[in-house]
Amino acid sequence: MKALPIDGERLQRQIDELAAISAAPAPVVTRVLFSEADLRARDYVKNLCRETGLTLREDAVGNIFARWAGKHPHLAPIATGSHIDAIPNAGRYDGVVGVLGAIEAMRALQQSGFKPERPIELIIFTAEEPTRFGIGCLGSRLLAGSLPLEKAASLRDPDGKSLEELRSQAGFGGQDLREVRLTPKSYAAFVELHIEQGALLEKENLPIGVVEKIAAPSTLRVQLTGVGGHAGAMLMPERHDALLAGAEIALAVEQAVLTSGSPDTVGTTGVFRIEPGAVNSVPCRAWLEIDLRDTLVATRDAALKRVENSVAEICGKRGVTFTVERLNVDAPAICDSSLVETVIASCGELGLPVKRMVSRAYHDSLFMAQICPTTMIFIPCRGGVSHRPDEYSSPEQIKNGVAVLAMALARLAV
Amino acid sequence: MKALPIDGERLQRQIDELAAISAAPAPVVTRVLFSEADLRARDYVKNLCRETGLTLREDAVGNIFARWAGKHPHLAPIATGSHIDAIPNAGRYDGVVGVLGAIEAMRALQQSGFKPERPIELIIFTAEEPTRFGIGCLGSRLLAGSLPLEKAASLRDPDGKSLEELRSQAGFGGQDLREVRLTPKSYAAFVELHIEQGALLEKENLPIGVVEKIAAPSTLRVQLTGVGGHAGAMLMPERHDALLAGAEIALAVEQAVLTSGSPDTVGTTGVFRIEPGAVNSVPCRAWLEIDLRDTLVATRDAALKRVENSVAEICGKRGVTFTVERLNVDAPAICDSSLVETVIASCGELGLPVKRMVSRAYHDSLFMAQICPTTMIFIPCRGGVSHRPDEYSSPEQIKNGVAVLAMALARLAV
Repeated sequence: MKALPIDGERLQRQIDELAAISAAPAPVVTRVLFSEADLRARDYVKNLCRETGLTLREDAVGNIFARWAGKHPHLAPIATGSHIDAIPNAGRYDGVVGVLGAIEAMRALQQSGFKPERPIELIIFTAEEPTRFGIGCLGSRLLAGSLPLEKAASLRDPDGKSLEELRSQAGFGGQDLREVRLTPKSYAAFVELHIEQGALLEKENLPIGVVEKIAAPSTLRVQLTGVGGHAGAMLMPERHDALLAGAEIALAVEQAVLTSGSPDTVGTTGVFRIEPGAVNSVPCRAWLEIDLRDTLVATRDAALKRVENSVAEICGKRGVTFTVERLNVDAPAICDSSLVETVIASCGELGLPVKRMVSRAYHDSLFMAQICPTTMIFIPCRGGVSHRPDEYSSPEQIKNGVAVLAMALARLAV
Repeated sequence: MKALPIDGERLQRQIDELAAISAAPAPVVTRVLFSEADLRARDYVKNLCRETGLTLREDAVGNIFARWAGKHPHLAPIATGSHIDAIPNAGRYDGVVGVLGAIEAMRALQQSGFKPERPIELIIFTAEEPTRFGIGCLGSRLLAGSLPLEKAASLRDPDGKSLEELRSQAGFGGQDLREVRLTPKSYAAFVELHIEQGALLEKENLPIGVVEKIAAPSTLRVQLTGVGGHAGAMLMPERHDALLAGAEIALAVEQAVLTSGSPDTVGTTGVFRIEPGAVNSVPCRAWLEIDLRDTLVATRDAALKRVENSVAEICGKRGVTFTVERLNVDAPAICDSSLVETVIASCGELGLPVKRMVSRAYHDSLFMAQICPTTMIFIPCRGGVSHRPDEYSSPEQIKNGVAVLAMALARLAV
């Protein structure tokens, strides 16, 4: 296959135009699900899809599907895609490279005269970021059927608005949420192009990573109730200090992951609040949120169980009452090995070195992997920085990623 | 002296009215220094003082002085008083019993026809609670000259507002903070009525305690800076988690006091905040405030030193940078023995049994003791509970305390 006419300048211009559609001034990008900025960004991307001759469909939760029909429209398509929503105070590349890059890949394939046998479909997933409803990958979870509809119906944003209310306001109220779920045969493959959000490619000066495994998160919420009192008057034997129970739990999380037997197990107590929070008051309540991840479900689940046991043991010893809630427990994804080889072969054809990688952040690919063979293509990002306005991948790094994506789509669609 | 006409019902009604002036709905009382609730509560109490015929003065930091002139206004007054600020989520009796109770004591003395030789003065101290600036007894420290003015000028609240800025907004900006300090001859004596904030009187079924010693408090502020990052992407060996360092420090505080050798040593990490505080983010910063107390300065100071050593050791091990600041390290107060005997004699006259006690909580009396003979009168509170909405002393218990205070003031002012 001859070199593809990828137009890096046009792509860069479109990344900049999309970044300007934001609830906060440049260089900050903020596009929260179904906000005015999110809706305008969707329009921008849908227009590009139309200009590229793609056929558009939107489902009940706002996932956008843009199809290049191919010679045999009845065959299961090759899918690619990512997201355009952005957390508050974010940058311009997370998700966007995989959406605008896929459009550029299709334009380049069209210009080269390539005609796919199978359809090629771009998916722009609704709300990969958890900002609005506290749950990430909302669109892809629903596509994969891994979010029960009762749970979706119970979602509320910080203002108390429901998903039903917000999707109606955004224009998706005419459709039934039950119809979002896809059958396992819907796609022949899914390949997502994404910035690494880590610094391994940059450190090793490599242009491309191919993802073999996606780590899966689980989240625990722990609420502790002890006995408050005056810090001077309450002698030590009378105490049931909720903060000290929480401190032991946070350290138990660390111990559980350090001794899990897998170097990939990570555990973080990222939320830790106490009440009343006054220097002369014994803390009576504590609230912890704990994130546990691994590439292997067995070690992750074992660590999760150990943490839950530690909570019970620590609270029992300290006379502190507790609740533990599993907010989400997702399975890690193993990527399809023949898809991984296709990406590696595409890199070979382009003369680009490639690194086999684990994705430690999670992505819509985690859920697409439940319905079809899936992998991801990573490009470097400066310092591994993401979710910040100074997130950056160079035009050359992006162009390389798009070239590999285009080549892989071409190999898969014939 | 004949029995004083103390009106317990009126006093109870006024305690309830003052409790309703709060930043949080009943039964919670929250009145942080110079908040809207604090300012309204000051107005409420000043009105009661006016109705009682007392002459009002306020100093540059907002301490309120309400004087009953007496026959010889040039003599050094007998002082009484306490505070009306309340930590978040507090109850209605801490401090308030000593303020509204003193007003009731003066009303009863007036109604009985008593004419003091010396003036009797009620002091309502600014910010006994450390909530806003992390330092307790702000008003009485400044009165006693035990808070350097440079340190007062450097105080900042959690929003970064200075004491200068806040006292100006509250209407005290026209005066000079240097004029707050009193000379050692300003008062002939100081007697503070207060709830015990411990359960000893209740356990022994005694109505009154007289305080011979006030435990020595000290406060440390520890600020920790680690390295933040993505909770999924940052592997455990790369971490310098500020929360985990803080958790170990809080547990080290507990160990230091449990092994101090004195059952009176208490230690509390009452403030514990982390940043950024998102479940998928490794905490990069933590902020702790630690309270250490004892009746013996030697064991208290040894525990303080051990905690400071632990902070250095834990942070060194975890690669977290730290600052430790001694916000205050106060000496215990020995109460005036002839004042203690006056209180005991007043109890005798009223037929009330009395217990000689140590105050484990610290009070404005600790600083008043630096400028004049001082003691405290304690009344029982249910279960020893304080700094909580369910803090409680019965109308009868309060009335007994007010009677003893009135009797002692009468004995001292003749």
